[in-house]
Formats: sequence, C-alpha cells, structure tokens
Amino acid sequence: MQTVFHLIEDDAEKRETALTIAENLTQDDSVEVGEVAVVAQSHGIEPLTADGEGSDHVRSLLEAGVSFKACGNTLDLMDLDEADLVEGVEPVSSGAGELTRLQSEGYAYVRP
Amino acid sequence: MQTVFHLIEDDAEKRETALTIAENLTQDDSVEVGEVAVVAQSHGIEPLTADGEGSDHVRSLLEAGVSFKACGNTLDLMDLDEADLVEGVEPVSSGAGELTRLQSEGYAYVRP
Amino acid sequence: MQTVFHLIEDDAEKRETALTIAENLTQDDSVEVGEVAVVAQSHGIEPLTADGEGSDHVRSLLEAGVSFKACGNTLDLMDLDEADLVEGVEPVSSGAGELTRLQSEGYAYVRP
Repeated sequence: MQTVFHLIEDDAEKRETALTIAENLTQDDSVEVGEVAVVAQSHGIEPLTADGEGSDHVRSLLEAGVSFKACGNTLDLMDLDEADLVEGVEPVSSGAGELTRLQSEGYAYVRP
Repeated sequence: MQTVFHLIEDDAEKRETALTIAENLTQDDSVEVGEVAVVAQSHGIEPLTADGEGSDHVRSLLEAGVSFKACGNTLDLMDLDEADLVEGVEPVSSGAGELTRLQSEGYAYVRP
Repeated sequence: MQTVFHLIEDDAEKRETALTIAENLTQDDSVEVGEVAVVAQSHGIEPLTADGEGSDHVRSLLEAGVSFKACGNTLDLMDLDEADLVEGVEPVSSGAGELTRLQSEGYAYVRP
C-alpha cells in the first residue's frame, strides 16, 4: 500500500501534526505501507524550505524514506527555487497534478 | 485522469486558493487531466452563488470546462435553489454522495 | 460504494458539520452506499470520547450503522483507552494506516 499526504495548512501546529501523522504511518506495523509521499503546496511549503519552521522534521522523514514534493506554482508565487528547499525535496509541476498522478497509481490520499 | 476538488472551507481566502489550485491543474501540461470537477458544500457554496464572493472565478473556471456541483443539503439549509446559483452549476443530492460516486468512477480527490 | 470520513478538525462546529455530512450520506438515496466509516484522530477524537462534545451524535450514527475508528497514537498521546470511548468505537493502530487500508479496499475518502 502507498499513501500520499497533502500538506497545505497555514498553521504551523497543524503542519507539525500532519508530519507526525505521516511519521506514525511509517511506524505502523499493522499495515504494509510501501511508499509514503508528502505533496506540499500553498502555506504547506514552509517546512520544506531550508530554514523553514519544521524543516528538521522534514529532514528526518526524508532520511526515513518519505518523499517530499513541492508544488511548482507555489514556488513561483513565493519566488523560491530548488536551492531554497531542504535537500532531497523534489519540485513538481503542480501540487494537484502530482496528487492526481499518485492517486491514479493507487496511492491512498490523506489530508491532515 | 480525472480530479474532483472538495470546496468546503469557511474562509474566503482559502476558497480562493482552492479555486486557483483547480485552475492550475487545468494548466498543468505534465499530467493528462480529462475532467476536473468541484463539489461544494457548507461554506464552500458561497462562490457558487450568483452574487457570492469568488463567483467570477467560478464563472471563468466553468468557461474553462471545470464542472461545479452544489450539495443539495447545503442548499436546503441555506434556503437556496438553482436560480440562486451561478449559471451552469449543477445541484446534486448530497456533497458526500457525489464525492463518493466520482471517486468510484476513478476521480482523484483533492481537498485544498 | 463505501466511504470513509476523516475527522480531524480542532473546531467543534466543524466536527459537528463533518458528522452531519456523514449522516446526510446515509440518507442519500441517489447513491448506493454500503459502508460508511469515520476515522478520527488528533482533535477529531473529542466526539468519540464518552463524555465528549458531540458524543450523542456519534452514538446515533453508530446506531444507524456508521462505524467509528479511533487513532491509537492519538489515544496514547491523550492518555485515553477504549474504556474512555463511546461504546462501539473501535481503536485502530494509526489513523493514517486505517485510512490507507480502507482506501485500498475501495472506500472513497472525504475530509470535511
């Protein structure tokens, strides 16, 4: 099974909860989860930026094998590019496009 | 691929972000998206009403081929009928029923 | 068709709306819905606790055949166990794990 988390909240505490929920999934032995991805857009980009609040949590999840994708429209809007992001975060064309693509591949969708 | 957006936020700025995310998907050439739908319920109905804040954005998305569905329970609760909605918006029996039906047809679900 | 609702909001009114949306689905004759489940986590646990705000709504939905699952990580964090929950609510290992499992079985996902 595969799961994609949609990270979009404008509240830092809710984003932290979302990352913890993703982390808990990687540690849940009751379900066999192959791939865990996080697609971030709008305010959800913050923890994916190199100095952003929550970026250390993103780094530890990347090390645990979770993949992170940053919405290209959001990056354009915020005048950010790949160099501004945590190393290992992958920019994608659009957040909704990536969420659509992953669900079409069988990923479950969770929006904390 | 097909995508349904769930429009439900009580905050006008978040609803505007949701409509922009839907719009960006229609312009994302990296993913072949056949149908884009928006199912609105609760406070998400506002931009689908004829004079509602954000209704011009709904009109331009309708022209771009995005379909809009309005939850019938919300319409009843707000004492609205089809004549109060932006032309082209389709009332449906219930928001969750329509979201279930579309996902069962293969639509990806995105809840901005 | 089957539907799982994700109950996670920190606002009591939004949680009440979410439960009403689930209730409306059980009463929507336009779509044949076999199973309706609610997975609660984080602040969404509140109405699933025996004396929690909204617990009467949970009880009536349980009687109507809706199943309720409580995230085990949230229960641990809040120092709650099954005895603290409305009778009939089922603890699960993790909220995201259960949401993944149900979607892999064909449940549509709705996050009010």
